[in-house]
Amino acid sequence: MPDIETVGIITKPNVPEAYQMVPQLIEWLQARKIEVRCDQETAAYTTLLAGLPRQQVPEGCDLVIVLGGDGTLLSAARAIGEHEIPLFPVNLGGLGFLTAITTSELFPELERAFRNEHRIGVRKLLEAEVVRDRTVIIRHYALNDVVLTKPALARMIDLDAWVDDQFMCAYKADGLIVSTPTGSTAYSLSAGGPIIFPRVPALCITPICPHMLTNRPVIVPETSVVQIVCGSKNQPVYLTIDGQIGEPLKEDDRVVCHSSRFALHLIRPPRMRFFDVLRQKLKWGER
Amino acid sequence: MPDIETVGIITKPNVPEAYQMVPQLIEWLQARKIEVRCDQETAAYTTLLAGLPRQQVPEGCDLVIVLGGDGTLLSAARAIGEHEIPLFPVNLGGLGFLTAITTSELFPELERAFRNEHRIGVRKLLEAEVVRDRTVIIRHYALNDVVLTKPALARMIDLDAWVDDQFMCAYKADGLIVSTPTGSTAYSLSAGGPIIFPRVPALCITPICPHMLTNRPVIVPETSVVQIVCGSKNQPVYLTIDGQIGEPLKEDDRVVCHSSRFALHLIRPPRMRFFDVLRQKLKWGER
Amino acid sequence: MPDIETVGIITKPNVPEAYQMVPQLIEWLQARKIEVRCDQETAAYTTLLAGLPRQQVPEGCDLVIVLGGDGTLLSAARAIGEHEIPLFPVNLGGLGFLTAITTSELFPELERAFRNEHRIGVRKLLEAEVVRDRTVIIRHYALNDVVLTKPALARMIDLDAWVDDQFMCAYKADGLIVSTPTGSTAYSLSAGGPIIFPRVPALCITPICPHMLTNRPVIVPETSVVQIVCGSKNQPVYLTIDGQIGEPLKEDDRVVCHSSRFALHLIRPPRMRFFDVLRQKLKWGER
Amino acid sequence: MPDIETVGIITKPNVPEAYQMVPQLIEWLQARKIEVRCDQETAAYTTLLAGLPRQQVPEGCDLVIVLGGDGTLLSAARAIGEHEIPLFPVNLGGLGFLTAITTSELFPELERAFRNEHRIGVRKLLEAEVVRDRTVIIRHYALNDVVLTKPALARMIDLDAWVDDQFMCAYKADGLIVSTPTGSTAYSLSAGGPIIFPRVPALCITPICPHMLTNRPVIVPETSVVQIVCGSKNQPVYLTIDGQIGEPLKEDDRVVCHSSRFALHLIRPPRMRFFDVLRQKLKWGER
Repeated sequence: MPDIETVGIITKPNVPEAYQMVPQLIEWLQARKIEVRCDQETAAYTTLLAGLPRQQVPEGCDLVIVLGGDGTLLSAARAIGEHEIPLFPVNLGGLGFLTAITTSELFPELERAFRNEHRIGVRKLLEAEVVRDRTVIIRHYALNDVVLTKPALARMIDLDAWVDDQFMCAYKADGLIVSTPTGSTAYSLSAGGPIIFPRVPALCITPICPHMLTNRPVIVPETSVVQIVCGSKNQPVYLTIDGQIGEPLKEDDRVVCHSSRFALHLIRPPRMRFFDVLRQKLKWGER
Repeated sequence: MPDIETVGIITKPNVPEAYQMVPQLIEWLQARKIEVRCDQETAAYTTLLAGLPRQQVPEGCDLVIVLGGDGTLLSAARAIGEHEIPLFPVNLGGLGFLTAITTSELFPELERAFRNEHRIGVRKLLEAEVVRDRTVIIRHYALNDVVLTKPALARMIDLDAWVDDQFMCAYKADGLIVSTPTGSTAYSLSAGGPIIFPRVPALCITPICPHMLTNRPVIVPETSVVQIVCGSKNQPVYLTIDGQIGEPLKEDDRVVCHSSRFALHLIRPPRMRFFDVLRQKLKWGER
Repeated sequence: MPDIETVGIITKPNVPEAYQMVPQLIEWLQARKIEVRCDQETAAYTTLLAGLPRQQVPEGCDLVIVLGGDGTLLSAARAIGEHEIPLFPVNLGGLGFLTAITTSELFPELERAFRNEHRIGVRKLLEAEVVRDRTVIIRHYALNDVVLTKPALARMIDLDAWVDDQFMCAYKADGLIVSTPTGSTAYSLSAGGPIIFPRVPALCITPICPHMLTNRPVIVPETSVVQIVCGSKNQPVYLTIDGQIGEPLKEDDRVVCHSSRFALHLIRPPRMRFFDVLRQKLKWGER
Repeated sequence: MPDIETVGIITKPNVPEAYQMVPQLIEWLQARKIEVRCDQETAAYTTLLAGLPRQQVPEGCDLVIVLGGDGTLLSAARAIGEHEIPLFPVNLGGLGFLTAITTSELFPELERAFRNEHRIGVRKLLEAEVVRDRTVIIRHYALNDVVLTKPALARMIDLDAWVDDQFMCAYKADGLIVSTPTGSTAYSLSAGGPIIFPRVPALCITPICPHMLTNRPVIVPETSVVQIVCGSKNQPVYLTIDGQIGEPLKEDDRVVCHSSRFALHLIRPPRMRFFDVLRQKLKWGER
């Protein structure tokens, strides 16, 4: 990490303890002559700074601090997108899969980061493009997953999936998840998928409630291109990115997913390990 | 079954072969001096009869003939509701879980039914009431299942479930299915539920994509009252009945499910057995 | 329950706290002029009584007290077999699915039982017969399950299963479990089976590691006869009863399972409920 | 592949069609001045050659032809071990996951291989060492999986698992599978594991019938060292390699698994693709 001159702050709205923490953090940074950029949600907690639209915060930053939960981090990850700026995630509240630094550790860990003593977890982003009539009409980056689902009141949808140029399966299901290893503990886990270590270079394709007995999650190499074609005539299909952004799709729309050349650089506290987080968050291994 | 004097016909719309079959069937019945009542969908295939709203067809009938697939039968079952009129299900097209009589067997099997030589499968209905502010605002009968789900673009919903007066679980999930044994091969199967013989006096509670590791489908006695309370503040929850009827619910709405005193009396061909249907419909036991 | 004049005691061996509890219990009973019969394992803890073989303890008893865990209770249940004597289960150590009375509750709950104020849970036994060359060569009662398995170093075995006269499935698997609702939280749960309330009149057929995608646990009515034929030529198959008794089987041996007319009458503490036990023993519903 | 001068043949015993095919194959090779080495099982089909112990066949070979099923291939893979000789797998009978060349394709595909026009699938081997009292007492190579299991009549065993230096889980289960991607369609699939593309650089850890609700298969990087310690005092634990070799273990024995620097070089027919094999062998995607 180069010398830190500019820091961005992205904060979850409506968190009581942020009213104390945000001004403290800004003062801590300004005392070190750091220029601070923040989003409007952060600015709502203080009079020290004006807020920018979240998407503009990362511009020119050497580090982005996220105060919130995993949801805020997913949103910040998309804002950073292609910038590859290190992200310093602080959990306001409990423990997150991604936001493992607690509020009491904020300043000690930040000092470590400024001394370049931090560990960085590199998390590959997943890129999803929607192709309609041979044109890419939408492109998004996901940290967890790209999901196609049926509307709430509809019945099963038809989705045809390919891995590279191999036909994989004609799914009749509630939906289909293409997940990164990072996302394996999110929605894919709910749908019955396996737990995947962050460093495994792979994608996981997990169907949501398939109406067939012959199904299983499938793990493909990270270099694969996963394509999904919407086959249902009479009902809309929704594309969601990290459970946060939703786009309605039409019949014959094709969603093309592949591992991005961009990655999220996530600053992690030294002691936090994968199975420890699983144990705390998901009661992993308890009996 | 008493002497058959009045017969109802309910038909799936837009099925090419129904244009020949519906008039044939009406003539066959009228030749036997049977009075025939049919829904508007049936009437669209012929000039022999005028159609009634589907809900009114069963009134005064001794038998209701359903031409269609499992979907049409589910709709007909709700129309029959409390009447307990035998239902003669003919599958236009493939093989259904419930509609096992094929078009080529229609007239021979109908003659058997008129000679009182048919077998009847009794399928208990599931009754669902929605209680809001201590008042029952909705009541439905289901043959397969009563389902609570999240909207397409929302994240997990919170659902608290009780069995009789025992607290069962606080689910954080995409939804929750309360299924009859009949419904065990429908949506519950997609969500990972077991296969339940039609005659088992039980209900199956199957979560849809629960975000927890500690979960399993739960089988409770048929005499149980299953109650589910919607806990999510900021997002709507949908109630669906047999995948066909949808109702938006509010926070604190309570869905009370119990086995109905009404049952569907389903006429079955003599040779069709449970595992044979499973094998044909779901590739059961194939390897 | 008639007046209690004779009480049997069955105890788990090598439990330190039994050295104090067993003499206390015998004195408590003898002070009430109760005749006490005990097994050799119980007698090892005291000089007050001589021990009988476990199978002979229940003869003439009005109540059998079991001190141990679920394993001791399963063994006691088989010793009681056709006698239908109420069983008073005390857990030495933790909490069992079946042995929910703790050592500190022993005497208060025993007093309740003597005053006829106890609750009884009736648990149907499962009867298994092995038929070889048209002759029943083995018969056992199970409280949890009847299991067929492969030897440790063998590969999959072939098992053909019937429900009544319907062919169900040709399994290629590590084994097959026929479980009572009571057994649904034991081995069947490990193999992926659903949780079944004790009062559901059903049996659960759960394959162990089937090498096929098209499989699911199947719930059949309690009145069903489940038959399993060993098809593997070159490798032995083992029959186990409640995980405790093992019998080697040969090719073409047929295991016939059906719900017994005998049941276990299990005395339960008033406060202990099904989902509470699940929560404590299996972390049910935790996230 | 260098010029082929010496070819080994390894054949499954007691396959009727091998009596014709083995001599044909030897004559075909000898007509091309190839030196042929074969195992005793192959020699039983012909008088043209004497047989060697299977382990000695690969010495000095440029290619090893395997006639049999997946089982024969697993055995041949272990015989090749560290030699990294290309393996030409022919399926006598049906279709195998690994042995996709049929008997009618044998000679055309062999000609392609001799012209160096074949495709090779590289399948990493898994190396397992048993450490007892700080000494490696056993070392094996596996193509599919390394499995620890309980004896047939025993109850659950205790296994503690580590990934690198992270404690993963204390399993109470029938056993534990460490599988390569190749093995993901073998025993791991039976135990509920996901399907993993052969090229994914990962290992899959799948518990066998764990008695806990909080469990899932776990995918770790191929570079991981997975260690499993046998914790059960009173019952033996068995180690099996590819379901073929079995070794009894003792309490506190440690099994250390890691991806080997040796790989199997598997000659594949040009048209056979991963999901096609899945569809044919496991009815993948059928409904």
